[in-house]
Amino acid sequence: MHKTVTVDMGESVLEHNRALARANREHLKEHGVRAFDFLGAVGSGKTMLIERLADVLKAQGLQVGAIAGDVAGDDDYRRFRKKGIRAANVNTGKECHLDAHLVEHALEELDLMKIDVLFIENVGNLVCPADFPLGAERRVVVISTTEGDDMVRKHPAIFRDADVCVLNKVDLASAVDVDPKVLERDFRKLNKHAPFILTNAKKGEGVEELLGALMG
Amino acid sequence: MHKTVTVDMGESVLEHNRALARANREHLKEHGVRAFDFLGAVGSGKTMLIERLADVLKAQGLQVGAIAGDVAGDDDYRRFRKKGIRAANVNTGKECHLDAHLVEHALEELDLMKIDVLFIENVGNLVCPADFPLGAERRVVVISTTEGDDMVRKHPAIFRDADVCVLNKVDLASAVDVDPKVLERDFRKLNKHAPFILTNAKKGEGVEELLGALMG
Repeated sequence: MHKTVTVDMGESVLEHNRALARANREHLKEHGVRAFDFLGAVGSGKTMLIERLADVLKAQGLQVGAIAGDVAGDDDYRRFRKKGIRAANVNTGKECHLDAHLVEHALEELDLMKIDVLFIENVGNLVCPADFPLGAERRVVVISTTEGDDMVRKHPAIFRDADVCVLNKVDLASAVDVDPKVLERDFRKLNKHAPFILTNAKKGEGVEELLGALMG
Repeated sequence: MHKTVTVDMGESVLEHNRALARANREHLKEHGVRAFDFLGAVGSGKTMLIERLADVLKAQGLQVGAIAGDVAGDDDYRRFRKKGIRAANVNTGKECHLDAHLVEHALEELDLMKIDVLFIENVGNLVCPADFPLGAERRVVVISTTEGDDMVRKHPAIFRDADVCVLNKVDLASAVDVDPKVLERDFRKLNKHAPFILTNAKKGEGVEELLGALMG
C-alpha cells in the first residue's frame, strides 16, 4: 500500500530494488532475453505500441513476451494473449508502479526459453515508476499528444532518465491543439541524447523506427 | 518521497491525514468556502474544466480560487492566474498526490475571505490520491475519451469513491474508437449514485451540468 511517509528504510528499499533489478537483468541475459520497460500514463498507447512491435518482431521470426502491470484488472494481459504474446499479469493493488520483486515473480511465470524480446508494461502514470528499475535494458517513456503540451515539464525526473521517448497519437495533435515540437523541445532540455520518436500506433506509423531504437 | 514498503505507521499516517482533512474542511466552512477536489490523469482536462467552471461562477458574481497540485512546474498555476483565479501552486516533488497537510499550507497562502468556491487540482494520476482526502466537500474524477475505454476498470477504488465522474473530450470519442457508454456502464457497476457527466471542456459543453452537480 502506498504511503507518503519518508521512512529511514527508504534508501535501503531503493537499494534493495536496485539489487533485485540487477538480478533480473542477469537472469534475462542468461536466457538471451532482451527486455524493455514501457512507462506512460494510462491511455498513452503503451499496449498498442507493444502489440505493433510484437507484430514486426514475430514477422522477423522472434518470440515475444510481455508483463502487463496494472493496479487492477487484466485488460492489457488479455490483449497480449489475444495477439499470441506470452504474457504474465501483475496487479499491484494500490501500488502505482511495478518493482523488481514483482517482475522477478512474473518472470517465474514465463517460459523465458521461448522468449526473445520481453516488454514490461508498467502501471500507467509518470510519477511513481521513476525510482524503480526493473531489470530491463532500456526504459521507454510514452506520451500522447492528447495529454497536452505540458506533459514533459510536469514530470522532469522520468524524462531525464528515459532511454527512448515516444510521442504517440501524432495524428490527433492538431485536433487537440498540441505542437509536437514543444514537447520535443522540452524533452531535449532534460535529455540530450535519447531518441524522440513520433508514432501513430493505430496505423503502425513510427513503429519500425522505435524498434530500431530499442534493438539497435 | 514515495516508498513501496508497508510500514506499521501506515494506518496512523492515513488517520493523521483524515484528521487534517477534517480540520481543512472546518477551516473552509468557517470562511464560507465550498471546495472541490479534482482528480484525473494528466491531460484529462482538469485545468480546462476548472477554467470553464470559473468563468460561469464569475459571471454569477462569485469569487474563485484554485490550488494547482503537480509533481513539478507551474503550468496550471499560471493558467489559473491568467484567468484571474486566486491560486496557490503546490509541487509535490516525488509524491504522486496531494495530502491534507500540503493543502493546509496552500490554504494559508490564499485569502479565503475573497474566495467563494475553491478548486483543488490534484496531481495527475488515478492511483495515489485515492486514500488521501483533502478536506473538499466533493471529489470529482475526470477521465478523457482519449485515455481508452478501460480507464474505469483499471482504477476501481477511485471510481467507487467519486462523488461526480466527468468524461471529457467526448468530441474525440469516435476518433479514438471509444464508446462513452462502455465507460458509463463500468462506472455504474462500481458507483450507483454519482452523476456521470459528458463534457467537451474546450467548447464549454457539459460545464453547466457539472456545476449543477457540484453546487446543488
